[in-house]
Amino acid sequence: MIQTASILEGNRLALARLLTQVENNSTEGRAALAELFPHTGKAHLIGVTGAPGTGKSSLVNQLALHYRKQDNKRVAIVAVDPSSPFTGGAVLGDRVRMRDLSGDAGVFIRSMATRGSLGGLAQTTAGMVQVFDAAGFDIVMIETVGAGQSEVDVARLAHTTLVVEAPGMGDDIQAIKAGILEIADILVINKADRPGIENTEKALRSMLELAHPTKHVFKHHGIYMNDAQGLKDNESDASFWIPPIQKTVSIDGQGIAELAEHIARHAERLRVSGCWASRERTRLGSEMEALLQEALMNQFREKISAQKYNRIMSQVFERSLSPWEAVKRLTENNNGRTK
Amino acid sequence: MIQTASILEGNRLALARLLTQVENNSTEGRAALAELFPHTGKAHLIGVTGAPGTGKSSLVNQLALHYRKQDNKRVAIVAVDPSSPFTGGAVLGDRVRMRDLSGDAGVFIRSMATRGSLGGLAQTTAGMVQVFDAAGFDIVMIETVGAGQSEVDVARLAHTTLVVEAPGMGDDIQAIKAGILEIADILVINKADRPGIENTEKALRSMLELAHPTKHVFKHHGIYMNDAQGLKDNESDASFWIPPIQKTVSIDGQGIAELAEHIARHAERLRVSGCWASRERTRLGSEMEALLQEALMNQFREKISAQKYNRIMSQVFERSLSPWEAVKRLTENNNGRTK
Repeated sequence: MIQTASILEGNRLALARLLTQVENNSTEGRAALAELFPHTGKAHLIGVTGAPGTGKSSLVNQLALHYRKQDNKRVAIVAVDPSSPFTGGAVLGDRVRMRDLSGDAGVFIRSMATRGSLGGLAQTTAGMVQVFDAAGFDIVMIETVGAGQSEVDVARLAHTTLVVEAPGMGDDIQAIKAGILEIADILVINKADRPGIENTEKALRSMLELAHPTKHVFKHHGIYMNDAQGLKDNESDASFWIPPIQKTVSIDGQGIAELAEHIARHAERLRVSGCWASRERTRLGSEMEALLQEALMNQFREKISAQKYNRIMSQVFERSLSPWEAVKRLTENNNGRTK
Repeated sequence: MIQTASILEGNRLALARLLTQVENNSTEGRAALAELFPHTGKAHLIGVTGAPGTGKSSLVNQLALHYRKQDNKRVAIVAVDPSSPFTGGAVLGDRVRMRDLSGDAGVFIRSMATRGSLGGLAQTTAGMVQVFDAAGFDIVMIETVGAGQSEVDVARLAHTTLVVEAPGMGDDIQAIKAGILEIADILVINKADRPGIENTEKALRSMLELAHPTKHVFKHHGIYMNDAQGLKDNESDASFWIPPIQKTVSIDGQGIAELAEHIARHAERLRVSGCWASRERTRLGSEMEALLQEALMNQFREKISAQKYNRIMSQVFERSLSPWEAVKRLTENNNGRTK
C-alpha cells in the first residue's frame, strides 16, 4: 500500500514509489491519486517545449537552480522523454542533470519515456504533476520534446508554457511551420550566443506581429487580459497577453533571471484575470475526458461478445464492411448481449 | 451528394470535394468513405517523417517525380502540416511544390493542418489515404513533421516508413533521443552534401547496432522476415528487416533512385513475408478503435443527464472528488437514466 500521508509529509522514497505506480497506471496508483487530489491545485505548472537540440534540458536545469537559490522554492521536473527504448537517453539526460541539482532535497526530477498511447502519456503526466503538486512542490516543470500534438496536449497541462527555439535549427519557414508558437506564453531563444540569432528573433517577431489580428489563436487558452491590469509589453494590443521573447544562454545562466521574471509576471496575470481558474478547469476537463474514454472502452469490451466482435472485424479485414459501418453495428444495442 | 462513381473514374474535382468532406468529418464524407472502402487496399502507403528543416517536402517531391518519370505511377501526397492557423505555411508549402509537379494529372497533393484532437488527425489522415487508394493512386505518401506521438500514429498508417534526418540538426544525443528511429523502415540522411554528414551517419549506424539485440523494437510492426527471402543487407542478422541508410540531396535528386529501390524492396519483403496483410490489419484495427471511442463517447453524452454531469464536474473543480472517482460515478449504471 502507498502511504499518501508520507507523501504529504515529503517522504522522497514514498514519492518515487508512487510515481512508478502512476507511470504503470496501477489501481493502487490511481487510488493514491484520488486520495491526494484534494491536496492539489497549489503548484505553478510550467510547460517547457521545443525541438530537439534547442537546449531545453539545460534551460530547465538553470531555471530550477534559479528558483532554488533566489526564491527557495521547491521544484519538481517531469521530463517527458521520447527516447527510444534502447538508447538510454533518459538515463543519460538524468545524469547530466544530476551534476547541478543532485543532493538538493528541494528538487525532484523524473523522466518518463513516451511509450504507449497518447492518451496514456498525457494522462500519466497529469498524474505525476498531481503527485508533485500534492507533495508541496511550488513549481512543477513539464519538459517535452518536439512539435507534435502529444507535446501540445502535455503543454496544455501547464499554467505557463515556454516554447524554446534556438538559432540555426533549419530554415526559418520550417521553424515557423513547427506550429508550437500558438501554445507559447513565453518564447525563449536559447543558445543566444550562436550565429543566426538575429534571424531567429526576426522570424519570431514577425510571427507575433502576424498573430496580432487573429485573436482566436489565443482563445483556447482563455487568456483575455485587461490593459488595466498592467500590460507592460511593447506590443500595444491590450486585450490579451503578448508572448514576450527572452534570449538565454542556458550554459552560463544568461537571461535566466529575466525569464523567471516573465514567468512570474505571467502567473500574476493569470491570477488577477481569473484565467488561472479557467485553465485549471480546462485541464481537469481534458483529464476527465481521457479517463472517461478509457472507462467507456473497458465497459464496451466487457459487454460485447467476442464472437460478434471477431465476425465484424473479419468483414472489415475482407473490406466487405467499412470501419464506419462496423462501429455502427458494434455499438447499436451494445447494452444487451442479445444481438 | 458526393458521387463516389466519379471518384473511381478519376474526377479530380470530385476528389478534392470529398477530401474536404473527410477533413471536416462530415456525415456525407463518412458515407462516401464507406462506399469507397471495398475499393481500397491496393496502394503502397509510404510514410515520410522527420524534424523540421530536414527537407522532407523536397524529398517527397523528388520521389514523386521519380515515380512519375520512371514508373509512370500515379502519386498522391498527404502532407500533414502542423502550421499555425496564421502562418499560411501549408499554402506556401504547396506553392513551392507546384513548381515541379503542377499540371501533372498523375499527381495529387493535399495539405492538412494538424488542428483538432490527435484521434481526429490520425483518423482524418486515414480517411484521406483511403480516398486516394480507392481513386486508384498507386503510391500514397504521407508526410508528417516531428517526432511526437501524433506523427508516430500517422506513420503507422503506412506500409513503409521513411525517417529523414539531416546533418547538423542539433547535437547527436538529442537527435538520437528524438525517438522516431524505432518506426523507421528506411533511414534517409537528406542534405548529404552538408558538413557533418559523417557524424550523422555514424550516429545512425551505432543506433542501428544498438538496436540489433533488441528485437522487440521492431515487433510492433510485425516485420519478422526470413533470410531465405533474400536478405541483402550488410548487417548479418537475418530474422528481420534492418533499416538501410540512404543518403540523398533532394534539391538535385542525388540518391533518389536508390531510395526508390529500397522502398520497392521493402514492399516486396512485406508482400513475400505476409507482413503486408498483417500491417493492413493493424492499421484497420487502430482505425476501428478510434472510431469506436468516438461512438462510445457520443452514446455516453446522449445518455447522461446534463444535471448529473455538471454536478459531478463541479465536485471535481472544487477538488472534493478526484477525476478517477468522478468517472466511476459517471459510468456506473450509465445504461439507464435512473441514477
